[in-house]
Amino acid sequence: MIKYNTNNIKELEHLFKINLINSATGYKSANLIGTKSVNGQENVAVFSSVVHLGSNPALLGFICRPTTVPRHTYKNIIETKTYTINHIHQDILEDAHHTSAKYPENISEFNKTNLQPEYIGNCTAPFVKNAPVQLELKFIEEMNIVANDTILVIGEIINLYVKEDLLQQDGLIDLSKGKVAAINGLDAYAVPETNIRFEYQRPK
Amino acid sequence: MIKYNTNNIKELEHLFKINLINSATGYKSANLIGTKSVNGQENVAVFSSVVHLGSNPALLGFICRPTTVPRHTYKNIIETKTYTINHIHQDILEDAHHTSAKYPENISEFNKTNLQPEYIGNCTAPFVKNAPVQLELKFIEEMNIVANDTILVIGEIINLYVKEDLLQQDGLIDLSKGKVAAINGLDAYAVPETNIRFEYQRPK
Repeated sequence: MIKYNTNNIKELEHLFKINLINSATGYKSANLIGTKSVNGQENVAVFSSVVHLGSNPALLGFICRPTTVPRHTYKNIIETKTYTINHIHQDILEDAHHTSAKYPENISEFNKTNLQPEYIGNCTAPFVKNAPVQLELKFIEEMNIVANDTILVIGEIINLYVKEDLLQQDGLIDLSKGKVAAINGLDAYAVPETNIRFEYQRPK
Repeated sequence: MIKYNTNNIKELEHLFKINLINSATGYKSANLIGTKSVNGQENVAVFSSVVHLGSNPALLGFICRPTTVPRHTYKNIIETKTYTINHIHQDILEDAHHTSAKYPENISEFNKTNLQPEYIGNCTAPFVKNAPVQLELKFIEEMNIVANDTILVIGEIINLYVKEDLLQQDGLIDLSKGKVAAINGLDAYAVPETNIRFEYQRPK
């Protein structure tokens, strides 16, 4: 095993450090968050920090660094209270990753990639067309993480759309059937081909 | 697409609901958190909510529901300020998942599975032996998520151990080389066989 302690980590070259620490949690969720500004400007950006907070109510969180590129996403959510979360799948990996480029606020990533916005129902924020899972979120609250000046943005799922062939009889969304990706670090994407399920576990 | 709105979700049968909403974020990290109580009782439990908060300092969070089974983990962390995060890999899937069984506090999951505790350096909490990535965390702070009475536990990586053949020249830990798992929902585990990396993206 190779070992890094706190001081080693602090002294690492920047890119090496962010590659290492971003891989240290294991696989991460791969999502595109869609928003629209109050002026009607569309935005879509890749996030790897969407996390399940609870099912009843159905709450999800994600981590935002307001001083870096996703601030358009954050600003739009705070102003409009609405956003979409769309699963990244095999066919859109390269375009999804390209949304990490730092475009100015008046440029829509939808116009710089083959990603297509889709509007469903009354949701003012764009979904990503053909994503196997599309979620409409209502902003609930934000929490400042003092330790490193980041923000946990919390939202409730108010509409969930899932491709029929992914949905199992007991409610599981089979992500491998949808060729959904997971993120490894900052720039590596894995698309698992299958999965293994286990029973509910009781003491033995 | 199959659609569920807020009211549909609230009215779903319990198991269907938790399967559905736990799959809705996409793939989740698959980790075993190791702790030891002040009385010396070992504990290890599966978590799918470990999230990267920042690299400088190297901060990770995870979500804890103090009213359910992982409370032993939470209690031990608050009392001892120390815990380990260990990547779940292909060889230990079944044992890792079994740690979700609700054992009483005086039973160690290490004694009910083939998972083996490992002690490294001065860390008082047990690591999981042979995990391809092992992290020693120092508890930093906890934040109450009022919306659903859960807790975000925040810790700093103070020692990081990674198997040499997983570590790439630029710091990426290649999780597919370590046969690291991702979690789909509550009980499905996927082990990606490969990944695709992209360049740093600039506007085009």
